[in-house]
Amino acid sequence: MDAASTAWILASFTAVSLMVPGLALFYGGMVGSRSMLNMIMMVFGAVATGAVVWTLYGYSAVFGDSYGGLGLLGDITEHAGLTDVLKGDKEAAIPPALFAAFQALFAALTVGIIAGALVDRVRFGAWIVFSALWVSLVYLPIGHWVFSLSAEDGSLTGGWILNRLAAVDFAGGTAVHINSGAAGLAAVLALGARRGWPRQPRPNSIPFTVLGGGILFFGWFGFNGGSALASGNSASVVVLTTMNAAFAAMLVWLLVERIMDKHATALGAASGLIAGLVAITPACGAVSPMGALAVGAIAGALCPLAIRLKYKLGYDDSLDVVGVHLVGGVAGTLMVGLLATPDAPSAATGLFYGGGFRLLGVQAVAALAVLAYSFVVTWLLVKAIDKTMGMRLEAEAEENGVDVTVHGEVAWDLEGAMYGPAPKLAERSREVVESAEALASAAAERGKG
Amino acid sequence: MDAASTAWILASFTAVSLMVPGLALFYGGMVGSRSMLNMIMMVFGAVATGAVVWTLYGYSAVFGDSYGGLGLLGDITEHAGLTDVLKGDKEAAIPPALFAAFQALFAALTVGIIAGALVDRVRFGAWIVFSALWVSLVYLPIGHWVFSLSAEDGSLTGGWILNRLAAVDFAGGTAVHINSGAAGLAAVLALGARRGWPRQPRPNSIPFTVLGGGILFFGWFGFNGGSALASGNSASVVVLTTMNAAFAAMLVWLLVERIMDKHATALGAASGLIAGLVAITPACGAVSPMGALAVGAIAGALCPLAIRLKYKLGYDDSLDVVGVHLVGGVAGTLMVGLLATPDAPSAATGLFYGGGFRLLGVQAVAALAVLAYSFVVTWLLVKAIDKTMGMRLEAEAEENGVDVTVHGEVAWDLEGAMYGPAPKLAERSREVVESAEALASAAAERGKG
Amino acid sequence: MDAASTAWILASFTAVSLMVPGLALFYGGMVGSRSMLNMIMMVFGAVATGAVVWTLYGYSAVFGDSYGGLGLLGDITEHAGLTDVLKGDKEAAIPPALFAAFQALFAALTVGIIAGALVDRVRFGAWIVFSALWVSLVYLPIGHWVFSLSAEDGSLTGGWILNRLAAVDFAGGTAVHINSGAAGLAAVLALGARRGWPRQPRPNSIPFTVLGGGILFFGWFGFNGGSALASGNSASVVVLTTMNAAFAAMLVWLLVERIMDKHATALGAASGLIAGLVAITPACGAVSPMGALAVGAIAGALCPLAIRLKYKLGYDDSLDVVGVHLVGGVAGTLMVGLLATPDAPSAATGLFYGGGFRLLGVQAVAALAVLAYSFVVTWLLVKAIDKTMGMRLEAEAEENGVDVTVHGEVAWDLEGAMYGPAPKLAERSREVVESAEALASAAAERGKG
Repeated sequence: MDAASTAWILASFTAVSLMVPGLALFYGGMVGSRSMLNMIMMVFGAVATGAVVWTLYGYSAVFGDSYGGLGLLGDITEHAGLTDVLKGDKEAAIPPALFAAFQALFAALTVGIIAGALVDRVRFGAWIVFSALWVSLVYLPIGHWVFSLSAEDGSLTGGWILNRLAAVDFAGGTAVHINSGAAGLAAVLALGARRGWPRQPRPNSIPFTVLGGGILFFGWFGFNGGSALASGNSASVVVLTTMNAAFAAMLVWLLVERIMDKHATALGAASGLIAGLVAITPACGAVSPMGALAVGAIAGALCPLAIRLKYKLGYDDSLDVVGVHLVGGVAGTLMVGLLATPDAPSAATGLFYGGGFRLLGVQAVAALAVLAYSFVVTWLLVKAIDKTMGMRLEAEAEENGVDVTVHGEVAWDLEGAMYGPAPKLAERSREVVESAEALASAAAERGKG
Repeated sequence: MDAASTAWILASFTAVSLMVPGLALFYGGMVGSRSMLNMIMMVFGAVATGAVVWTLYGYSAVFGDSYGGLGLLGDITEHAGLTDVLKGDKEAAIPPALFAAFQALFAALTVGIIAGALVDRVRFGAWIVFSALWVSLVYLPIGHWVFSLSAEDGSLTGGWILNRLAAVDFAGGTAVHINSGAAGLAAVLALGARRGWPRQPRPNSIPFTVLGGGILFFGWFGFNGGSALASGNSASVVVLTTMNAAFAAMLVWLLVERIMDKHATALGAASGLIAGLVAITPACGAVSPMGALAVGAIAGALCPLAIRLKYKLGYDDSLDVVGVHLVGGVAGTLMVGLLATPDAPSAATGLFYGGGFRLLGVQAVAALAVLAYSFVVTWLLVKAIDKTMGMRLEAEAEENGVDVTVHGEVAWDLEGAMYGPAPKLAERSREVVESAEALASAAAERGKG
Repeated sequence: MDAASTAWILASFTAVSLMVPGLALFYGGMVGSRSMLNMIMMVFGAVATGAVVWTLYGYSAVFGDSYGGLGLLGDITEHAGLTDVLKGDKEAAIPPALFAAFQALFAALTVGIIAGALVDRVRFGAWIVFSALWVSLVYLPIGHWVFSLSAEDGSLTGGWILNRLAAVDFAGGTAVHINSGAAGLAAVLALGARRGWPRQPRPNSIPFTVLGGGILFFGWFGFNGGSALASGNSASVVVLTTMNAAFAAMLVWLLVERIMDKHATALGAASGLIAGLVAITPACGAVSPMGALAVGAIAGALCPLAIRLKYKLGYDDSLDVVGVHLVGGVAGTLMVGLLATPDAPSAATGLFYGGGFRLLGVQAVAALAVLAYSFVVTWLLVKAIDKTMGMRLEAEAEENGVDVTVHGEVAWDLEGAMYGPAPKLAERSREVVESAEALASAAAERGKG
């Protein structure tokens, strides 16, 4: 057991845990004021459900021995219930309980990301059922493909993308971001747009979106840096490249907004930060600090342009899960094929460093396989749930406010909070009454006279 | 010195430090819009006071050698001022300065938790005095009972619950949660309900409560995981069980709400998360990952039912300190007696694993002792402060808004922030005036005619 | 390579990364509701720009070999682009990539702090240009002076303050806080006050300020504790002294407010926390836990008094960058000269521990040098940018709301969020109309009669 690496992965896990409220509030701030709680609940509900499935059989399906040695799915009984992690494993660098907990959040957050595509249109109970089934049918196989490493002594067969294809995906650009982005697109197409879309309410609280984005930025250092599974130079390079990509993407996104819309927005800053983080996720161990600035800059230019497509193509991907996670994830996965430098921890060589087109092809296959599988299965799943138990929210909920209708509560009640409106308006109303009374009694006087 | 364990406890301490604003905002979002700052101030004020007392003599009272070897209270002069921690201790696994800092936050946050029971009714100066005295008279003895380990060579006698009774409380289910919960109940009974209760304002910002709850979830991994005092398998199992209990409790709480009230609420999600975290605190090192799901599920069912009691029994425990911390803490402490598996780090054996009723009895004694001591001393303390300096807030503060009255400020001033309400209402008022004028002058006309 | 220390610095870096949104929201909550996003954007824009400059040549300018061995500026080409950090350095205790990433946030956050002095008066594009130039011309030289340690074998010459003067500045009291505070003062004097100042809008969201302050409190443990560059007793003492100073400053600040203004405010609590953290930054490795309480208490008394000066002296330092960072930074730097105890990690001896006046003089020289250089160069830089590209915002932006004008968006849109104001006021307005109608028709009746 490597106690120092365990310390860092414990800290990483802890940092990633804050991404749960981070994601919920990043999304929650962007929706209208009468839907914020529903968005928060979709994220929390999905994450909690995903984590419970993970303990029951999810970890086993990802990290168990491949059925038939095919690299398609792990044995769901091998580690079922995670009871085998209690005693630790002296051969492992980090305790299996910690690895299981860390990876649980990957699975759980991936379902949570999808929520952003589906603002104001999903029944909560059906969403929980969807979350359980989506993790089971979509995340677990893909997680096995991408994250499960075969044992060198042949005692364990892992996933085909990691071992046979040997694609480079340091921290889940495919399994987390392309996956959730493709699922978001499929779900939106299967369920349809919000009523009245593209008319939509203004974000109720951009400060909460900035906060959520900032928390995601923080948690990502655990997500990417912890994926090194060790305390050392790899994790160190990874946190540096991750930071660089995030900041470069943010600055370029703002520049694109400034040029195209005249205004650089705070919403753009938060989105740019996330786009850079998504793109660097597969690449964080493969590029140099300057390469990371390039990855970020490209994502920061590409994603805001991709987002504009939804209005042209007509799919209501409300909070841009497709534009940020799918497009950013594909961009980052492919850029590994261009910018990977052999000096970096992943030790891969991209086109620009003389590695030829091979790696680029490998990355494209990985991206495409995940995209296609996730899209197809998600579409079928959403249609199946919608046909059987009904997934689409009733029209009245959208009209009356989703928070009140679905959850029986409102996000905000600031009545009387301010010295401001309420008392001032009450005073103004009193003046109006008095003025009306004065006029009326003057009229009465005159009437008398 | 174990540098890897020190790294993890440094990180744990840092994570726990975020629970200070986390707790303040978790509570702050739940109160009315004119009381949010007072709630925040009660938490910060209590925590800061508790931490200062800790340096002066608190650490010494908990971890100093027991007076008379009784296991009731440590020598308050032994480490007074903490000047002896500067040079470190090469024999200790982690530096004493770090242990002192980590445990300071336990003491400080425990006082902070009590604030949630006392919304809108406490004078701020009296609250600071209460905090200093409560830490001194209630937390320090109980902390000694539960956290102070006797030295094997007999050079140091620790607390009776940990050493003589040998109860299992991994991270403070008794000393932190049962303690603060019982104190909250005593304080509420001693001070009485808010005027007008059970009528009460709606939560002003559930997003802040969700954020605060999410931060507490994050910090809890430092709180529980750091209580392993080492980087290794124990901390790893603990973060996994902690996560599982939190998510299971959240889902079950939502289910209970759905069944009983038709709506699963965001407030319920945040509360459920905390209830699970409270219940797993004593048990996190004693149960399996599946056992943790059970601990969470039971707390998630029990606490929302317990909360309903306050309306029946008539105590105004405003933010459910009793229903969550006392009930959750007792439930978790007792469940150790049922679900403890010898394979887990605490190496205890509960009833369901063939350990018989012994452990259950031990846990019940620990829970009861802490509950009774905390309740009685807190009740006396509140009554004493209220009689001497006055602890209850004046009636006018409750009417005029506690924030303005006590702190001279308001939490929110969004006037003019939105394109929305203010201008529209001003316009509407103008219309009203004009319409009144028109009516009045028409009346005058008719009067003339 | 020291894996345990690397684990702690990875965790420290991660904690510090949350200070980016923390600082943005700490400031953002304090400004008026129509300027919050601009304040957030100024912080994020400055930080991102600073971090990009850091990778390009900033790290090199601070940690490269001194030009001419003068200790004034490092060689900007030596580590340009940070490509030399990829492969790690087996001789170094922590990987250079991690050290570079950690220090990047120091540089980046220092520019961000300045933003708080300049509410509502800076063009965003010019601010980004300022950020890039300020880091280059002000931070990089000072960072070299203070942070760059000469190699014992003479292979590298570091900065004059650290090596020749041998001032004690554990984590950047001079380079970060005196520096940003002096720059804030210079920028305010060069650009002038807001129109209408000292009339100014109320803080739009003190909860966000408390949250931001709480996040800064959390991140500071990474900032100060990580500056030990090792997992061990130094970092442990540092987190303890840092916590103590923060809480003591908060309590004393509240006491000062209570005495002078009758009300202890939440804004004061958050400000006090930060003042204590600023003051302990240079001193955290030099004082005892009791000494840290003293450092905090003095900063908590001094800063709120210093803040009152701005109204007397007439400079519009909007969010008290001068009163907190400059005054707190100078106070902490000088207090090292008084309170440094040889038992603490910095192993310096202050006046009160029998070290005489020598250290106090050294600290004063360091403080003054940084203050003077930062003030002069910043003033010239702001004047130069304002003359060439224009730095001051147009008057109409201040009138129409900076967020809408500059960024084309609003921070809040809670219209319809509440059961509250809007419907109730509409109802009240209807009552007013009806009452006016009744009066008018009564008058008309009487007129008729």
